[in-house]
Amino acid sequence: MNRKMVVVLPVLTPKHREQIRFSAASNGFEVSFFTEAQDALPALADAEIILGQSQVLSQNAPSLRWLCTPSAGVNQFLAPDAFAQPDAMLSNSSGAYGVTIAEHIVMVTLELMRRQAEYNEIVSRRDWRRDLPIRSIHGSRVTLLGTGDIGQEAAVRLRAFSPRCLIGLNRSGRNPGNLFDRVVTEDTLESVLQQTDLLILSLPDTPQTRGLLSAARLALLPHNAFLVNVGRGSAIDQRALEALLRAGHLSGAALDVFEQEPLPAKSSLWDCPRLLITPHVAGNMTLDYTVEKIISQFLGDFDRYCNGLPPAHLVDRNIGY
Amino acid sequence: MNRKMVVVLPVLTPKHREQIRFSAASNGFEVSFFTEAQDALPALADAEIILGQSQVLSQNAPSLRWLCTPSAGVNQFLAPDAFAQPDAMLSNSSGAYGVTIAEHIVMVTLELMRRQAEYNEIVSRRDWRRDLPIRSIHGSRVTLLGTGDIGQEAAVRLRAFSPRCLIGLNRSGRNPGNLFDRVVTEDTLESVLQQTDLLILSLPDTPQTRGLLSAARLALLPHNAFLVNVGRGSAIDQRALEALLRAGHLSGAALDVFEQEPLPAKSSLWDCPRLLITPHVAGNMTLDYTVEKIISQFLGDFDRYCNGLPPAHLVDRNIGY
Repeated sequence: MNRKMVVVLPVLTPKHREQIRFSAASNGFEVSFFTEAQDALPALADAEIILGQSQVLSQNAPSLRWLCTPSAGVNQFLAPDAFAQPDAMLSNSSGAYGVTIAEHIVMVTLELMRRQAEYNEIVSRRDWRRDLPIRSIHGSRVTLLGTGDIGQEAAVRLRAFSPRCLIGLNRSGRNPGNLFDRVVTEDTLESVLQQTDLLILSLPDTPQTRGLLSAARLALLPHNAFLVNVGRGSAIDQRALEALLRAGHLSGAALDVFEQEPLPAKSSLWDCPRLLITPHVAGNMTLDYTVEKIISQFLGDFDRYCNGLPPAHLVDRNIGY
Repeated sequence: MNRKMVVVLPVLTPKHREQIRFSAASNGFEVSFFTEAQDALPALADAEIILGQSQVLSQNAPSLRWLCTPSAGVNQFLAPDAFAQPDAMLSNSSGAYGVTIAEHIVMVTLELMRRQAEYNEIVSRRDWRRDLPIRSIHGSRVTLLGTGDIGQEAAVRLRAFSPRCLIGLNRSGRNPGNLFDRVVTEDTLESVLQQTDLLILSLPDTPQTRGLLSAARLALLPHNAFLVNVGRGSAIDQRALEALLRAGHLSGAALDVFEQEPLPAKSSLWDCPRLLITPHVAGNMTLDYTVEKIISQFLGDFDRYCNGLPPAHLVDRNIGY
C-alpha cells in the first residue's frame, strides 16, 4: 500500500502537480491535491506528509510525520494543540520569499525617497510640477533588522545602490556571506538606530521580536529617517510610529504588515501622512518564481525525508522559526 | 584685471557658492552668481566662462570661451546661432544624473511589474485584495538602449536583481566596464527587441535616435513586455506605444519624457491604461547628490581649462553629445 502525501495549494499549475506527483511516486507516495483545507479532511486520516498552510490540516492528521507550510511564518502551527500528532516535524518555506520581498523593499524605499505618491497625485491632476526635493539610497545609512533570506536578498540589491553603509542586526551577530558592513545584536540597537537613515524590518513574530521597536526606540531614529516593515506588524509600536509620521519626525514609512490584518477599515493609519500602505503583498504567492521555489524547496526536503534526514527548512517550534 | 565667470543656477547653497568662488579666485577668476538668465545679461559682456543652461547666456556672451550646462541634454545649444562666439567650447553635466535616473528606472520598473498603481487604488478604497499576479526583474531579459552614464548605473543596479540577461545597445558595440552580457548596435535591434522582457531607453535626442523605436519595431516586443523611457521622448513613436498599451500587448510602460513637454492637458496619454507617467523628474536637480556632482564635475573641468586642456565633458556639437 502506498504512503500518503496531501498537498493543499491553490496556486499550482498542471506542470507543478506533475512534478510533485513524479517525485512522490518515485518514492512510493501517492499524492492528493486540494485547493482548500476543508476539502482535504477526508484524505488526512492516513496522510504522512502534508504541504499546506492551514492549522486545520495538522489538527486532523493523526498519522502525520512532516508538515511543510508554503509560508515563511509559522505562527498558526505553534499552539500546543496545533498538531494531532505532536511528534510531527514542521518545516517552512523560508527562502522562497527573499527575492520578491527584496524587490518590494527597494520599490517602496524609492517611492518614499522620490516622493512618488505626491508625483502620482500631481500627474492625476494633469499637472507638471517637478520641484519636490528628493532623497537617494546612494549615501544613506541603511540598517536591516533581520538578516535571514529576506535581509540578505535585500542587502545584495541595496548594495548596488551605493549606500553609505549596510548594518545588519540578528541574534548571533554573525555576518551571513559578509553581505553587511557590520552585524550587531539587540544590545547595540539603540546606538544603531541613532545612525540610521533607512530602517528595514524583516523579522518573524516571536516573543523576542514582539514590541522590539518600542516608542522610545522609534524616537531615536534621526529626523527625516525612513522605515520599511515587511516582516510582522508585532515588531513595531504602531501607534508610536503613526505619531512620529504625523509629527513629521520621520520622512516616510512603508508598511506591508500590521498589528491587525486586514487593517481595520476604521484604523487611523489609512490616512496617516507619509505612510505607504500595501495589503501584505510583499511576499505572497502571486509571483511565479516564488511558487517554483516553494515547490523545489519542498521536493528537496522530501528527498532528504526519504533518506532519513530532517528537512533543511525544519522549524524549531520553541523559537518559532 | 580679473577674468570673469558667470554662474546661473537656482539650486546652489552658500557652501556651493563658496566652493566655486574659492576655485575661481585661486585661478584669477571673479564669479557672479545669478538664479535667472535674464538677470545675468549685464554680466555677460566680458564673461569668459559660464555655468548655466539657458541659450540666452551663450547668445549674449561675445567673449565666451567655455560654457558648461548643468543639464545632460544640450539641444538648446546646437542651433547655428546659439553662440555669439562660435568658437566657444560647450560641455555638459552628463555623469551627474546616472545615480538618480538609475534609481528612477528601478523604481518605476518594479511599480509596473508589481502592479503598484492597482494596489495604490485598492488601498485608497481601504480594501485588502492581495491576489494580483506580479512579475519580477529576477529572470527577466533586460535591454538597455543607451549605455552611457545612465545605462551603466542602471545596469549595475539591475544586475543585483538577477535578470536573465542585460543587453546593451550603442553606436560602437563596446561594452563599458563589461557591465552588460552583450552590447549590440542598431543593425541587430530588431532581433534583440523580440527577446526583451524589459526595454529601457536612456538615449539623447539626436538625428540618429529620433524615431528609433518606430511602430514596426515596438510591435516586435513580446506580448507582456515592459518599457521605460528616461531619455528623450523623440526616440519613440508615442502614438504607436499608446496603441500597444491600450491593446494590452504591452504589460506596462513608464514614461518620464514625451514628444512634447509639458505633456499637453488634452493628451490622450494621461488616461492610457498600463502607463505610469512622471513629469520629467527622473534626473532633475532636486537630489543634493546631483547638484554636488554637477559642481564637482564643473570644477574638475575648470581645473583642466586653467591648464589648457579641453573639458572632460566636452560636447561635439555635430553629434549632439
